[in-house]
This record gives sequence, structure tokens and C-alpha cells, in this order.
Amino acid sequence: MSERIAHPGLRAKVMSAHDAAAKIAPGDQIGFSGFTGAGYPKEVPTALAERIKEAHQQGREFRVNVLTGASTAPELDGVLAETGGVNWRMPYQSDPRLRDKINDGTTFYSDIHLSHSGMMTSQGFFGPVDAAVVEAVKINADGSIVPSSSVGNSVNYLDAAEKIIIEVNEWQSLGLEGMHDIWRVGLPPHRQPIPITTPGQRIGSASINIDVDKVVAVVRTNAPDRNSPFKSIDQTSKDIAGHLLEFARHEITQGRLTNELRPLQSGVGNIANAVLAGLLESEFENLTSYTEVIQDGMVDLLDSGKMALASATSFALSPEAAERMNNDAERYAKKLILRPQEVSNHPEVIRRLGVIATNGMIEADIYGNVNSTHIMGSRMMNGLGGSGDFTRNAYISIFVSPSIAKNGDISAIVPMVSHHDHTEHDVQVIITEQGLADLRGLAPRQRARVIIDKCAHPSFRPMLTEYLERAEALGVGMHTPHDLAQAHSWHRRFLDTGSMRP
Amino acid sequence: MSERIAHPGLRAKVMSAHDAAAKIAPGDQIGFSGFTGAGYPKEVPTALAERIKEAHQQGREFRVNVLTGASTAPELDGVLAETGGVNWRMPYQSDPRLRDKINDGTTFYSDIHLSHSGMMTSQGFFGPVDAAVVEAVKINADGSIVPSSSVGNSVNYLDAAEKIIIEVNEWQSLGLEGMHDIWRVGLPPHRQPIPITTPGQRIGSASINIDVDKVVAVVRTNAPDRNSPFKSIDQTSKDIAGHLLEFARHEITQGRLTNELRPLQSGVGNIANAVLAGLLESEFENLTSYTEVIQDGMVDLLDSGKMALASATSFALSPEAAERMNNDAERYAKKLILRPQEVSNHPEVIRRLGVIATNGMIEADIYGNVNSTHIMGSRMMNGLGGSGDFTRNAYISIFVSPSIAKNGDISAIVPMVSHHDHTEHDVQVIITEQGLADLRGLAPRQRARVIIDKCAHPSFRPMLTEYLERAEALGVGMHTPHDLAQAHSWHRRFLDTGSMRP
Repeated sequence: MSERIAHPGLRAKVMSAHDAAAKIAPGDQIGFSGFTGAGYPKEVPTALAERIKEAHQQGREFRVNVLTGASTAPELDGVLAETGGVNWRMPYQSDPRLRDKINDGTTFYSDIHLSHSGMMTSQGFFGPVDAAVVEAVKINADGSIVPSSSVGNSVNYLDAAEKIIIEVNEWQSLGLEGMHDIWRVGLPPHRQPIPITTPGQRIGSASINIDVDKVVAVVRTNAPDRNSPFKSIDQTSKDIAGHLLEFARHEITQGRLTNELRPLQSGVGNIANAVLAGLLESEFENLTSYTEVIQDGMVDLLDSGKMALASATSFALSPEAAERMNNDAERYAKKLILRPQEVSNHPEVIRRLGVIATNGMIEADIYGNVNSTHIMGSRMMNGLGGSGDFTRNAYISIFVSPSIAKNGDISAIVPMVSHHDHTEHDVQVIITEQGLADLRGLAPRQRARVIIDKCAHPSFRPMLTEYLERAEALGVGMHTPHDLAQAHSWHRRFLDTGSMRP
Repeated sequence: MSERIAHPGLRAKVMSAHDAAAKIAPGDQIGFSGFTGAGYPKEVPTALAERIKEAHQQGREFRVNVLTGASTAPELDGVLAETGGVNWRMPYQSDPRLRDKINDGTTFYSDIHLSHSGMMTSQGFFGPVDAAVVEAVKINADGSIVPSSSVGNSVNYLDAAEKIIIEVNEWQSLGLEGMHDIWRVGLPPHRQPIPITTPGQRIGSASINIDVDKVVAVVRTNAPDRNSPFKSIDQTSKDIAGHLLEFARHEITQGRLTNELRPLQSGVGNIANAVLAGLLESEFENLTSYTEVIQDGMVDLLDSGKMALASATSFALSPEAAERMNNDAERYAKKLILRPQEVSNHPEVIRRLGVIATNGMIEADIYGNVNSTHIMGSRMMNGLGGSGDFTRNAYISIFVSPSIAKNGDISAIVPMVSHHDHTEHDVQVIITEQGLADLRGLAPRQRARVIIDKCAHPSFRPMLTEYLERAEALGVGMHTPHDLAQAHSWHRRFLDTGSMRP
């Protein structure tokens, strides 16, 4: 135990999760560690959920605000959502039970850019943070915390919180120490340039210094991260990855990229893994990554030597890759950096490094607007995460999606998206398995034809062209011709009949 | 003449605007200086328009791409648009004749964030720049150029262009020398931190060094900037300014602002002038500005001592204020800095300084999405300018508008905006003369009620509430309830009947 909790005063505060959860009161606003199912506290949230259920059974009100880095796991968002006791949640989530509570109106959810979420908390925009509950690999003798498999917003929450609860998780490898790079952006007028000029540059410390007097509980745990199994890569994803790599080769011939590309950012999931697998077999060399999450394909690239190093704020690994990481963390710590998400997602660094950003989407419209978050305009899926931070500031911003979903009943290319997360001003390239639309330097009507031609599924192309031509004929303006009576008719049809097709 | 053109080789290249325009060929892509009607070339564009008209009369094709800093003037956008010879235009425009050509489909227009426009040109995303045509106060002995009343994208265009044409305008005061601060952001992987940590900090040189061998013509001119007359401030604008200042006072009580506020950015126009006039009479002290344009109200604040200094990329003055500036430029150069728009609008600096951003809008919807650019979803107005650069990266982002337009036939608060330029993720505060909606930390349904209650005109409130309640009752999801069949019905009604009212 002294190896994991080296500060004597904090060793004296070790208690059960149940006792630690008793430090949290109804109405509290709580900042949790955790990002993409990594580095979230494993036991205190469940103990807190028990307390909330108990209160509800006794007819007492008990609701809390839940702030995190990004998505967590059933043991945090799931158990708390189930109680109906989550009043407000930010900035990103993906738990099915929580999503239901958001969409049935039980839980208020604010979908905030990941780089804004910690910053706005520090700026006091959401009121006081009553408690921070964070997972650590270990507590150093000086009381500073070595975070575990993610950093997320923990620094902001620890700094802002009145009370601190630390979970020390023995499942997390001690070898992670040295992988983190803790740097505080701070508040204006005292903000200084973030001195990162290469993705691998370390600018801070390996642990988070905290006010030890604020720690009210330390809980010992031993439990794995959520770590979702790796799904085999499907043909659609391979086709999308193929278009992306072909585009990169074209950019090299135009002198706009080199064979090292630029630092890569990508969302998680099947398409991202296909792109990473494609890079593994490609001619590109000495790749780097400046991104949010380290996923399986990136570990493969690092192992192969194709990728020199990667910077992120979190892991998002399969159980197998997580085991590899934990067994060999010290070696990986030479090539991997985990930063606070205020740094990993900061516009300043993303733009300076010239990141190539690739993110998934729910749908795009013919003018290049992108919906990343809402099903048929009203139901929240997960949130926009860091897609806005990277897309707006990228050297090249790319959105990817299969052209159809639900056996062809849904088209990913629509007349007008049902919700706007990324506007025409930010989206440079759209890729489906059908092809790639390079929108740079095109006006809206030009974009429409390229997107329909290259990205839409052939079975939806005539309907899209018909929409565009009808809108052009209306005389409402030729810059962005829209027929507002029909712009969302495809979504309405889906809601009515279960298909966008007539 | 030697005072204004100190480089002998360039003095030898002085010629008429007509001869200079002959250096431009059909199909050329031209980067012009000019931002908000300041610092644009005064004679070459008209001479070029003559050439284009001549070609068209002779049945020859002659179209060009026109790149600028932002809006220019009748002598640039107006005369060129009139020929029908503008093929592609970016990144911002406000000339009525050009707007017509964009909306009738003659001219393709790309509405690009001002901070992206020069950067993407330098990155080669729009292809080669054939010519740069820029206005200067003078040419130094080493061939470097002292820009005039704006910097805009001139550095990017001069660096990228194959040929350079310089207009030396004697109307522009020689006292402007020393007011500019030229710094190149450059290309990745060579980008370094922009070292600005206070709005008034100078980091570069007073003139733009160029490749003198690329200069094909120097033209001497003597003509004023566009300089629109100052309109007296109306009561609606005063009311909006009042709400804004009250909000600032509230933020001070919460410890989120000090009496110096934070560096201010604001769009141009009546409301902005009302805010500046309000500040002049307020208790706030030692104000600063980190913005795009210096307008009349800001000069008054500087003169009064209320504002310590202001950083921008351009002037946007009335004829009277422009005369004051020209007569006293040397003194103002101690308090005013004109930077390239890649620096004035850079996310890195805006976020670091913690700018308070206030921008006008065409409409907002009940969920806080903002339309800055499109009339009824299809017709382009001016473009989004720097509103995205500032809004996304601001300490506090504010949008302002009167609650109604066209004698009450148009509501500025609608169920769903007809075009999205700024999403729910970026918009923190909305103000109309009715009141102020503080959206920070609110979920969409909460935002809707605050916006309807505080910002909508009373005569539209019942219709908005009815829309929201009907959407909630539809069962399509309670996160962002929308009735997609009715979301744009107000806009459709306006297009059909001339009023959003039933």
C-alpha cells in the first residue's frame, strides 16, 4: 500500500467507497475523472448511486450534477443514470441508460466542446465544484496524484473542487508514471503561450499537485477500465480508409503534405481503426498523432515503428491492447503522452501543429454541414466531443460515414441536416465508401454537386439532385438554394414510415 | 514622390492604373488588400474592370477570382461585380452589386472564417495566387511596404503571389508608419507560438518585407477610404447596450470579471457603437480591445482615456473620424496596433487573452443556434467574417440583435434558424432590446425557455412557446424537441406572405 499511497496523511484517509460517498451531499456538483471509458473512478459512483436510491426510497430528493472528461462506463454514468438522480451532465456521454434519461427529459445535458468544458468550469461559469472524484495510479509522497489511463478534466476539477476523493486503482500499471504531462492553461489575464511545437514535446510535470487539505477520502480499488472489444474491420470502413489514403497521396503530389503527413487526430470506432490499419500497410513513415484517444490501431502503428509517437488525453483500448499496455507501460511511456484535455484539444496547439482531423458523423447535407449528435434532429446520441476543437482548427478537416444506414432506409447525405454541429465554414472533406468530396474553395452550389456525385449512395442521388434543382428553381436565392418546405422531409418521412425513401 | 517610394527600382516601375491592370490576365486569381472599406486599392480594380468590360464587348471570356481581407468598396467589389467577371470571391463582402451577383448565381462565393482565409491561401488550398494588388502608405528604401489603413490578408497574398502591384496612396497619412505590427504565422511544421500575452504587445515589424523582383507595377493614387457616415444611435441599440453593461456588472459581482473587463471585440454598426458609447459613460476603466476593426466609438474611448489601447487589423471609421486619425496618426500609433488578420483573429491569441466577443446576427433560434449570413436560408447577406473566430474562442461570447425587423413582420428569435453559422455549442449569451439570455450551463430545453422569455418580442412569445410545447409533445426526444414539419414554417410564411405572422 505504501507503494501506491506514499503520502502518510492521505494514507490515513483510506476508507470504503461507501464512507467516501457519504461525503457527497444532495445537490452537489461533482467533477469526475474519466474519458472514453478510461481512468474513471470505479467504486465511489456505485456507492453514491446506492445513497441516492436509498434517499429516493425514503422520499428524499437527491440529485447531483455530473461533470467528466468525456464518456465513462456503466459503473459511473450507468449506475447514476439508473437512479434518475443526475440533474445535469456535461460534456460528453455514451452510456445507453444515461442517454435514455437525457432523451426522456429526466437529465439536462449540455453538449460542450471538450476543450471548453474544463476551461469554463475553471472560469466559474457553472458555479462551484463541490467535489472532485478522480482515479489515480498512485499518490506521491508530496500528495501529488499520478493519473491513470486518462487525464481528461481532472486538473480543472481538482483545482476547483472544495472536496477531493481519490480512488487508487491497483489494476492500473505503475508503469504509467511518466506518461502524463500535466500543464495548466490557467485563467486570463495570466495565460501564457502553450509551448508545444511538436506532438511529442513534454512541457509539464508527471503528476497533478493538489491541495492535500481538500482530500476527504482515499479509496483503494482494483478493477479494469471499460475497454470495449475490438470489432473486425468491415469492407465499408476499408473503402473509406482507402479514399482517405488516396487523398493523402494526392495532397503530397500537390506539395501540401509530405510523406510524414501531419499529426493525425481521429475519432474512435471501426472507420478510424480501418484508417490506422491502412496506414500500417502504407508507404507513409515517421507518423505522429496529436489526438484525444489512443486506440488499438495506434498501438500497432507505434509497435511497428510506422508511428514515432502519439499525444492524447486518454486510452480507448480493447481488453487485449489494455493488457499489452499495462504489461509494458514503461516502454510505451517513451512514445506516448497523456495531457489534460484542455491541452490535447486546445485550438492553439491543433492549429500550430497543423493536425489532420478525421471524425465520424451521423449525417452531412449537400452544402457540407455536419450533424454529429442528434438522431432526426431531437434525440441526443453521444455529443460532439472534441470533433469541433479539431475540425475548426485542423490543417485538413475530414468527416467520414457510410453513405447509408439501417439497410438503406437512412441516407447519410440529406438535403439539410436535422441538427448542425459543424457548419459549412469548417468542413473541408467528406468521405463515404462511395468516394471523397474535396470542398475546399467551393461555393455552396458547387459543393452540393460534388457531395451528391461523390458521397451519396447511388440509390439516393436522384432524390438529392431533384431537391437541389427544385430549390434552385424556386427563386429564393442561388447562393444556398433551399426549399424550406422540403428540407427536412426525408427525416419526417423516416419518423413516419421508418424509411427516408418515398 | 521619393518620400513615398524610397526604393529606386520600384520608383522605376511607377505607371498608370491602366498599364498596371494590363498585367492581369483572364482567369487570374488576385489577392487584394482591403478590410471593412479600408486600405483597399483605389484605381487598379477600376482599370481592371474596364479591361474585363472591353473583353466581354469583344466576346472574349474574362473572369477573375477575387480574394481580399474582408469587405472593400464600390471601387473594388462594386466595379468588378458589375462586369459579371468575378468568378469566385472570398472571404467576406458587403457590396450590394456583388451580393446580387452572388445571389443570382453569377459569382461563386466561399464564406470562410477570416482567420482561415489567408492561412488556407498560404497552405495552397485554393491554388496559385497570380497577383497581389495592395495599397501602401509608402515603400521603404529596402522595398518593404508600409500598409495603409488595414493589414488584412496582404502578407499572405504578397508572399504567395507571382506578381505584385502596389498602389501608393497619398491620402493615407505617413503617420500610420509604426502603427502596424507584421508577424507571419507561417506553415506547419514550422509554426511557433504567437508570443502575444497582452493586447498591446508588439511582436513584429512595422512594414511587410516582399520579394521586390515580383513587383510588376507601382501606381500612385490619392483617394479616401470608403468611410461610411456615423449613424446616430437609436433607442433599441441603447437598450441592448444597457443589458450588456448590466451583465458585465453582474459578472464582476460573481468574480468572473474585473472592472477592467477583458479585451473587447465587437462587430461594426449601430449596436456596437451604442455599447462603446455606453462604456464611455460607465465606471469601467483601463479598457482594452483585441478586435478586427477600430470604429468611431473606440477612438472616442481612446481619446477619453477610458480605453488604454486597441489592437485590430483595420479601421472602419466615419469620414470625420478618419480625418481625425489621418491628422493625428503618429499620436494614435502609440495606442493602436494593426495586425495581419491571421493574428488579430487567431484562436490562439483570442483564447489566451480571454476576449469578450460581441457580434450582431440575423436570427437566433430557441436553442441558441445563430444565423449570421443568410436571409430566409438561401440568400447571402455579407458573410460571417470574424464572428466565428471570436465567438468560438471568447471568454464570453455574445450575440445581439433587435428582437424584430421589418415593422414586426420578422422575429429575430425563431423555432429553428434557416442557416447555421454558430451552433448551440458556441453561443453563450443572446441580447435583444427585450433582455438578456445567459445560456451558460443550460441544456437545450432550458435555453429555449430563457430565450423566449428574455429575448423574443412579446408579440412572438406565445407562438414560440406553442412551437416548443408541441415539439415536446411529439415524442421525438426531449433533448432538443423539434417539429421538423413546422421548424421553418415561419420563414416559409414570410417568403409566401411577407410576414412571419399568421
